[in-house]
Amino acid sequence: MSEPAASELIELRRRLHAYPEPSWCEFYTTSRLADRVEEIGVDEVIVGRGAIDPDERLGVPDDSKLERWYDRAVENGARADHLESMDGGTTGLVAILDRGPGPVVGLRVDIDALPFEESTEPDHEPAAEGFRSENPGVMHACGHDAHTAIGIGVLESLADAAFSGTLKVFFQPAEEVLGGGRAMAATDHVDDLDAFFAVHVGLGHPTGTVVAGSTKPLALRQSRATFAGESAHAGLAPNEGRNAMQAMATAIQNVHAIPRHADGLTRVNVGSARAGTASNVVADEATLELEVRAGTNDVLEYMSTHVDRILRAAGEMHDCELETEVTGRAPRVDSDPELAGLVETVAQRTPGVDSIESHAPFGASEDATYFMRRVSDRGGHATYVVVGTDHPSGHHTPGFDVDERSIEIATTLLSDAIGDVLSEVAYTSH
Amino acid sequence: MSEPAASELIELRRRLHAYPEPSWCEFYTTSRLADRVEEIGVDEVIVGRGAIDPDERLGVPDDSKLERWYDRAVENGARADHLESMDGGTTGLVAILDRGPGPVVGLRVDIDALPFEESTEPDHEPAAEGFRSENPGVMHACGHDAHTAIGIGVLESLADAAFSGTLKVFFQPAEEVLGGGRAMAATDHVDDLDAFFAVHVGLGHPTGTVVAGSTKPLALRQSRATFAGESAHAGLAPNEGRNAMQAMATAIQNVHAIPRHADGLTRVNVGSARAGTASNVVADEATLELEVRAGTNDVLEYMSTHVDRILRAAGEMHDCELETEVTGRAPRVDSDPELAGLVETVAQRTPGVDSIESHAPFGASEDATYFMRRVSDRGGHATYVVVGTDHPSGHHTPGFDVDERSIEIATTLLSDAIGDVLSEVAYTSH
Amino acid sequence: MSEPAASELIELRRRLHAYPEPSWCEFYTTSRLADRVEEIGVDEVIVGRGAIDPDERLGVPDDSKLERWYDRAVENGARADHLESMDGGTTGLVAILDRGPGPVVGLRVDIDALPFEESTEPDHEPAAEGFRSENPGVMHACGHDAHTAIGIGVLESLADAAFSGTLKVFFQPAEEVLGGGRAMAATDHVDDLDAFFAVHVGLGHPTGTVVAGSTKPLALRQSRATFAGESAHAGLAPNEGRNAMQAMATAIQNVHAIPRHADGLTRVNVGSARAGTASNVVADEATLELEVRAGTNDVLEYMSTHVDRILRAAGEMHDCELETEVTGRAPRVDSDPELAGLVETVAQRTPGVDSIESHAPFGASEDATYFMRRVSDRGGHATYVVVGTDHPSGHHTPGFDVDERSIEIATTLLSDAIGDVLSEVAYTSH
Amino acid sequence: MSEPAASELIELRRRLHAYPEPSWCEFYTTSRLADRVEEIGVDEVIVGRGAIDPDERLGVPDDSKLERWYDRAVENGARADHLESMDGGTTGLVAILDRGPGPVVGLRVDIDALPFEESTEPDHEPAAEGFRSENPGVMHACGHDAHTAIGIGVLESLADAAFSGTLKVFFQPAEEVLGGGRAMAATDHVDDLDAFFAVHVGLGHPTGTVVAGSTKPLALRQSRATFAGESAHAGLAPNEGRNAMQAMATAIQNVHAIPRHADGLTRVNVGSARAGTASNVVADEATLELEVRAGTNDVLEYMSTHVDRILRAAGEMHDCELETEVTGRAPRVDSDPELAGLVETVAQRTPGVDSIESHAPFGASEDATYFMRRVSDRGGHATYVVVGTDHPSGHHTPGFDVDERSIEIATTLLSDAIGDVLSEVAYTSH
Repeated sequence: MSEPAASELIELRRRLHAYPEPSWCEFYTTSRLADRVEEIGVDEVIVGRGAIDPDERLGVPDDSKLERWYDRAVENGARADHLESMDGGTTGLVAILDRGPGPVVGLRVDIDALPFEESTEPDHEPAAEGFRSENPGVMHACGHDAHTAIGIGVLESLADAAFSGTLKVFFQPAEEVLGGGRAMAATDHVDDLDAFFAVHVGLGHPTGTVVAGSTKPLALRQSRATFAGESAHAGLAPNEGRNAMQAMATAIQNVHAIPRHADGLTRVNVGSARAGTASNVVADEATLELEVRAGTNDVLEYMSTHVDRILRAAGEMHDCELETEVTGRAPRVDSDPELAGLVETVAQRTPGVDSIESHAPFGASEDATYFMRRVSDRGGHATYVVVGTDHPSGHHTPGFDVDERSIEIATTLLSDAIGDVLSEVAYTSH
Repeated sequence: MSEPAASELIELRRRLHAYPEPSWCEFYTTSRLADRVEEIGVDEVIVGRGAIDPDERLGVPDDSKLERWYDRAVENGARADHLESMDGGTTGLVAILDRGPGPVVGLRVDIDALPFEESTEPDHEPAAEGFRSENPGVMHACGHDAHTAIGIGVLESLADAAFSGTLKVFFQPAEEVLGGGRAMAATDHVDDLDAFFAVHVGLGHPTGTVVAGSTKPLALRQSRATFAGESAHAGLAPNEGRNAMQAMATAIQNVHAIPRHADGLTRVNVGSARAGTASNVVADEATLELEVRAGTNDVLEYMSTHVDRILRAAGEMHDCELETEVTGRAPRVDSDPELAGLVETVAQRTPGVDSIESHAPFGASEDATYFMRRVSDRGGHATYVVVGTDHPSGHHTPGFDVDERSIEIATTLLSDAIGDVLSEVAYTSH
Repeated sequence: MSEPAASELIELRRRLHAYPEPSWCEFYTTSRLADRVEEIGVDEVIVGRGAIDPDERLGVPDDSKLERWYDRAVENGARADHLESMDGGTTGLVAILDRGPGPVVGLRVDIDALPFEESTEPDHEPAAEGFRSENPGVMHACGHDAHTAIGIGVLESLADAAFSGTLKVFFQPAEEVLGGGRAMAATDHVDDLDAFFAVHVGLGHPTGTVVAGSTKPLALRQSRATFAGESAHAGLAPNEGRNAMQAMATAIQNVHAIPRHADGLTRVNVGSARAGTASNVVADEATLELEVRAGTNDVLEYMSTHVDRILRAAGEMHDCELETEVTGRAPRVDSDPELAGLVETVAQRTPGVDSIESHAPFGASEDATYFMRRVSDRGGHATYVVVGTDHPSGHHTPGFDVDERSIEIATTLLSDAIGDVLSEVAYTSH
Repeated sequence: MSEPAASELIELRRRLHAYPEPSWCEFYTTSRLADRVEEIGVDEVIVGRGAIDPDERLGVPDDSKLERWYDRAVENGARADHLESMDGGTTGLVAILDRGPGPVVGLRVDIDALPFEESTEPDHEPAAEGFRSENPGVMHACGHDAHTAIGIGVLESLADAAFSGTLKVFFQPAEEVLGGGRAMAATDHVDDLDAFFAVHVGLGHPTGTVVAGSTKPLALRQSRATFAGESAHAGLAPNEGRNAMQAMATAIQNVHAIPRHADGLTRVNVGSARAGTASNVVADEATLELEVRAGTNDVLEYMSTHVDRILRAAGEMHDCELETEVTGRAPRVDSDPELAGLVETVAQRTPGVDSIESHAPFGASEDATYFMRRVSDRGGHATYVVVGTDHPSGHHTPGFDVDERSIEIATTLLSDAIGDVLSEVAYTSH
């Protein structure tokens, strides 16, 4: 294997950092990645529509937002054929090195950014070094720019390596809304994977640390609910309204009060509410953004059933119509101990790694679990690797940044681990 | 007409006061009244089952309570044939003077008492004079003892009078629960009434005052709702419960929040709630007693529809079964100005009357309105007369008492007014 | 008196209609009116800051909105000295004809528009005739353009008339938010009024109808409440949040459930709610727009006290800070029967009037009542006159329009009535 | 050691089973136990007041209930001196074998029963064998009758044994309400314990199984909250009420919705609610019985703080006074692995034991943890032992029963384990 120059990956990461795009709007990012993997010389590149199952997407923004980012990508010089394949928000890319019979390995990295305004503080490195976000209100505040660079780095490493088998790198869109994992994992690109790796930097782990296999991500479902009632003058004819405000308040109170479950932890949150227009008008519309999480997939089902019943009844109670839409979803799937064991072994020889945990709880939610479940259901092995990175500020905050040394560490670690699987040194798929 | 001796009516009232019975349990009271009207010598007496339509009763207590009061009436010497006709809570009595062709006039008085413990204070006349309630926890705290005496007084007055026509006195059970008016007004005894009087003493009006025709009683519906869920250990398996407590709380909050109505005043109250057993058990049952009132019958319908929908949805929201029962009901019906005019005229010559109001708002609710609506629907005239009485304490309080002078005033006023209708002096039915 | 040419008033009304401005942003409107009254030749004009008491304003929008409309007025050629006097949202104007000793009469017309997009339907006259709103999202949908023209018309009528006494015409800003009446009625311009007229067109009354004195406007208080809590990750640390969403929902449910009042009708509405940002974040802020109304000022006080207590407790319950601001307010004041009698008399001789009601309930709320209360408290007389106008669509709807004939009718009616007061023909102030 | 005859312990258990008494009402039970331990010949017996700290009791019933059970104990022949020491509900007993210097060991068994009506089904052994509860509405449905017999059995075993040191057996009242553990653990009898054992039969473990040390009992707080408002006629004067019903409903909804906690599981339940009297009266009183539980003591503190704040704010919101009382409480304390290890070792040689778990989660809550915490805080060792018993129906159900063979197993296991500690064979206190 040839190691990619670390400085090139850092430069790539900085370019991605400067041009963050929100979920399902990664038009420019995908196009740039397509250019890059073509330069590397892979055997197959699937851009856009073929890289995901469009019907399985969740949380796709409305057309006007999609168009705005599409047009921006056009202006910035994204290739027309790439863009055409992503029209309507079908972003993402799969890059394949196909070297004949042998193990089939997948690596998934996510590529989208968050709707935050990036810090302008002088001690914020991207600001100081001139690669702060050029897209107002959007920011790579969770390290997906680094993940993407790592994905490219692994491709480069293995492109020149001698092995028999196949490597597929999945550049997944829309992880931040838990909307892309399901769509990408539903494609037949995932059908034949014997081993699967997902990677995340940071998450509180400092540079030099590796968690070989994350466990216990929370199963999650996010949704949007809209109550439609009828407006009326609050002074002259309050009885003529069908009060979406009251339906909403009843729903909020009762959703938060779903009973705890004996079989696992639960979470519930109504995080956003918008209702009505003015104090003297009975509100005719109310929209909630809410989510439930759980320690197991069954308990998530329990929470979801309760949410749905509460919303439905709250609407009926106030004679309002209800529309709901699932906008994000991820199951709980734990890392496979065997494959995590291989990562642990490789990490012991990886330069820059000074602390290894065989497993650790993930805490939050991730839709890489869709890949992991699919691979595991078919008898393959899957692990979710965390590569530590010093980050001066928490994930999902305006001052978030990564320690760029972790890009090289992760690239080496994953290239070697994948190489080992492909050469069947340490691990036999079954 | 021969005037009944006032002292006899007062003695009757005191005997009734000492033996108060709750709604639908007026076994002894009805039997004593039957004895008395037979002594007076009326043309027809209908006791119990024939005096009401049993299927139209509301708010009938459970069998064990009915039996307890039935047995008590037996012990106190109520006649067996009377009691037999009231078995199962079919109390009440109609007494008829039938003197051939001519106007048919009805008078309704109510006979039940309230579930209060009567005052033992020395300044409470019934306590001081030795006719305080002998039935613990029950009390004539609204003057129905006086009303009953007035009904007897009017019968006596007119029994010896010369007239052509018919007088029917309705001794109605279960007014306090708004459950007897509907049952009695549904009988064919009400079919042929040309004129109808109901009477109430007090209501804040002092002795000497007469309101010739009350208006604007609130339409009312009282009901009971029971949510049935499933219990579970609150620590070990909270998810296995179906929480009737939460259904109940949601119902209480939303019922109180039914929007006001442009067409008339509204009232709503959940007055009683009972749910669950212990802190460590998810409640599997919750029962509410609630009511709605309104300025018009249409607005009552609006309120009732909302209550029913809210209760149903609250049950569905928490996966609980709902049972509801209407326990009391009364429409709004205003007094007929023409018949009230006759009362006003008669009042001007009635001894003891020093202040007359042609009409006044009633404020609360009354199920005499069922008679009034039926009479009025058939072209007859109906008025609800208030005869003032000094009362030292409010209606429905333990210290309530009436000024017994008002019994004679009311008897004279109503006898004369009914006499005028029967002799067609001042008023022609059509 | 010289009658103003109806066509000029109609033209003025159309110009105002084409340039509607929201409450407290009537910079251009006020300036144009100042120009016009100067042309008429009044004795005194007070523009902006002096026409109102700035500290008594309610519902003033934020600075950025004020600046936007200020700048727009500058662009449209409003006079610099006028604008300077209105800087910061101190709009409005008082025009005075001072003809020496004698009665002092006030007329109030309101000048602001509503935040609606005007209809573009071909059967909507302003669209068909080319005077539809040029200010996107703002519209004269309640007839204040007509009111303003009537105010000018009355001034013109009486400017040349011979009388001894004073006429003050109040061009009031911010009626739509119930925020300007209090501020203008608090000035000393109102100190010496012997008689006061307010006028509104339409309100369901057709052209040709006059209501000489409106009664029973609902007392009203509108307010904004903001709960400030603390955000937290809904999956990782729900306990670290202070949940403004839950505070808000509790407030909504309980505010709508404030008990009805025996002494008068009540209204309550939470009409707008905005809380939180995303489903996975515990909401740290929630803002409600709400109002209470009542049949009497005491009952409004009762409702307001309850709202304030509920909001405060809802905040405490969820450990959130609460900020509240009263954004609109109007007391209930009924028209004076004596002054309404004069209007009735004058209406009988006014051309175009074919139906007169001495009084009628107003139904909604109006802050002209601040003037009426102040005048009445000082021994003067005040009436609120409704001049019918055929309107094809309801007030506060995109298709609202007035029948322009009503402008002349109202101008004549009010000029004559004011003239009568000034000449002390039919009415003697005291 | 001399083994007590198993048949005698079974007979004792059956006598206790036939005479169950509720928490703090164990007058007869305590007196009978006092008789029995005197027969055994212990060195010290502390009956009633001295066995507990009366001020630390929680969940003591009202005087009328205490008196009823006291009188019943008198009738059944409980000794007067015993009863005197328990007057006012100070039940419980400590029996001490004091054999000079050496280790001090405690064993705690609980003695109270539950407010359930026992099954009369023929397949319910106590019914079939004639030792069903003679106290209507009360039942030993959790095995405390067996625990008590085990306590006696251990005392008998060790009474004749040769050892140097002290054994204290704590017959604890009021475990079912989590009210007695705190009171007994607060006495100085617990000051000098080097080792402490608590025992429970069943809990889903079959006969033959032993759990040497339970872990993770839920920390718990139970409380009662009463809102006091003001009643009013719901039709005539709803505004005059201060609505305890609404305060209660708001509290129920919000208490159930306390946010989950990142650091451990939580439970919350409002299990009982009683409010108001009748549908037409605004409720002036409402009482809730509720509880919170948590995986850690800190998280219980979090839950308790939230409950208290919510209740306080719900009262303020509806202008009601609030009174709260903690009625039950237990901390989380896990078994000491070292002492559990000793139990495990002993269990391996105990006849009838065929399955041993070194530790297992407890699931529910227990106030033996007060003893465990106190002992552990002072450097001693404490373990909570579960001895399996086949039970045909769940704990706290009318058909619950124990397999009496488990009484002998537990007696032998605990006698031996305590014997080992006393003889310092396997374990050295420090």
